[in-house]
Amino acid sequence: MKVLVIGAAGMLGRKFVEKLAKTGLLARRKVSRLTMADVVAPAAPADPPFEVDAVACDLSTPEAATSLMANRPEFIFHLAAIVSGEAEADFEKGYRINLDGTRYLFEAVRRAGYSPRLVFTSSIAVFGAPFPEVIGEEFFETPLTSYGTQKAIDELLLADYTRRGFFDGIGIRLPTICVRPGKPNLAASGFYSNIIREPLKGEPAVLPVPEDVRHWFASPRSAVNFLFHAAEIDGTAVGPRRNLTMPGLSATVGEMIESLGRVAGPDRVKLIRRERDPVIERIVGGWARNFDASRAISLGFQAEKNFDEIIRVHIEDEHGGTI
Amino acid sequence: MKVLVIGAAGMLGRKFVEKLAKTGLLARRKVSRLTMADVVAPAAPADPPFEVDAVACDLSTPEAATSLMANRPEFIFHLAAIVSGEAEADFEKGYRINLDGTRYLFEAVRRAGYSPRLVFTSSIAVFGAPFPEVIGEEFFETPLTSYGTQKAIDELLLADYTRRGFFDGIGIRLPTICVRPGKPNLAASGFYSNIIREPLKGEPAVLPVPEDVRHWFASPRSAVNFLFHAAEIDGTAVGPRRNLTMPGLSATVGEMIESLGRVAGPDRVKLIRRERDPVIERIVGGWARNFDASRAISLGFQAEKNFDEIIRVHIEDEHGGTI
Repeated sequence: MKVLVIGAAGMLGRKFVEKLAKTGLLARRKVSRLTMADVVAPAAPADPPFEVDAVACDLSTPEAATSLMANRPEFIFHLAAIVSGEAEADFEKGYRINLDGTRYLFEAVRRAGYSPRLVFTSSIAVFGAPFPEVIGEEFFETPLTSYGTQKAIDELLLADYTRRGFFDGIGIRLPTICVRPGKPNLAASGFYSNIIREPLKGEPAVLPVPEDVRHWFASPRSAVNFLFHAAEIDGTAVGPRRNLTMPGLSATVGEMIESLGRVAGPDRVKLIRRERDPVIERIVGGWARNFDASRAISLGFQAEKNFDEIIRVHIEDEHGGTI
Repeated sequence: MKVLVIGAAGMLGRKFVEKLAKTGLLARRKVSRLTMADVVAPAAPADPPFEVDAVACDLSTPEAATSLMANRPEFIFHLAAIVSGEAEADFEKGYRINLDGTRYLFEAVRRAGYSPRLVFTSSIAVFGAPFPEVIGEEFFETPLTSYGTQKAIDELLLADYTRRGFFDGIGIRLPTICVRPGKPNLAASGFYSNIIREPLKGEPAVLPVPEDVRHWFASPRSAVNFLFHAAEIDGTAVGPRRNLTMPGLSATVGEMIESLGRVAGPDRVKLIRRERDPVIERIVGGWARNFDASRAISLGFQAEKNFDEIIRVHIEDEHGGTI
């Protein structure tokens, strides 16, 4: 069985491929060949139990997707996107990659004519403030960024292409992924990971918002599990509404810091320096705080139940289990 | 002041232009030039108090929209679309006109760089069953047709292009227009107009569904008024959620027939022949029955309050006031 991962060089793509290489299984079937595609050729996993192609391609040309469909993969994961900040800074590039690129892929799958399972990563950025305290399953999508607009459009296309039988699509709206491994970055959401990851490394981190700010999280491990689960769920059980808000954990910054103290000790907490940033405060103030994800939960998707768990997962996956 | 109407050869476009030619005013300003565009060159109104260009163009090429922007119209009405049935029958054509055509227009306006008011006609087809009994202002868009998908995508683009300041867009979700003038057609919704229009002409009509079927209506006159009002409302008052469910009237087929009897007499009602059609019954059963349109109403949009009024409007506008 052949699997195609587009966006395989990103954080989520790499972790997904790593896990796939460990078991060699997807949706209880043996993987024979994995095609990893990204704007730069992704690094293949070590000793995979299947053949691997690593492809560099530019999704903003229709030919790229057509060529990726040549071996008719049974499972397609479309994780590639220009991130929110870049899509906002470069209007044309955002639409070219996040909308046209996705549509070229969907069109290439339609033309291939064999209706594979296609898993697409959407985002909670499809929603735009003002929100209810908990965003319900039937709340409308009024994004306030070009990135969110592009993801919302992709969701609509995914549902229509699925309804038409061109592929069997599942769109999954990821929570903010926390704790992101790697280096601190300047994304407005970066501090959510920084204030946990850096202290766990013994490094200082800046908290730019008050402790009562509430947001919606899942670990990278849960996000990878969402992808595996989205590959194997029964499309009939999903019905025509193909885009699902993934489960997550609603937590305040204060609760995150309490978790850090419990899991890693009070000295780690002291590494967090409070330094308010009105710009980040304003951006983050427009973000969703909590969701009803009961549809996804009833379909078997699972995420962490408390923030201690999210920190423990990070220590297991990024620190080998001990700090 | 220059006005551009795309889709000017359609029923709504013709009625809008006719009214514009009577007053010569839009948003309290004097119109100096009207460009009417459609896939065939639209007929100009008689004795208009402004200059008229009638243009045949193919919106599915990017050049068409660019050339329509050459004289920088202050108001743009984008009414052109492939109808629902055709967009469902011809997947590629539907996306080419209803999505690509709209996006080419939006791009041409963006490139022109002067942010005109742009009024776009969307549809209640952006919603998909199952519905609540009354569809609320924050209900999500999960269309069950390609047409509805295309309109929902256009709405998202309109909101993002407006947020970016490329134009000042207002999307209006029209109710089912009733009573449509002209000949009976085979659209699944055709009977809603047929059962009123044909008896008023002394002709028989077929009712293919039970009398308890409920749907959402406004007259062609109200639809034209929506366009005029959408041109003049204050964009700031609308806020970032630029797509509005227009007011309408929720009525059952039974109530429509009672109105026909009251307004035109019991002999007209006898011209309606009941002949159930399971296919039409199933299609219509998936349509919305009622909406909360309080946002549009608070912005000053108005429609008929009862079905008698809708019939009287038809008699005034299509029969010169008497039957």
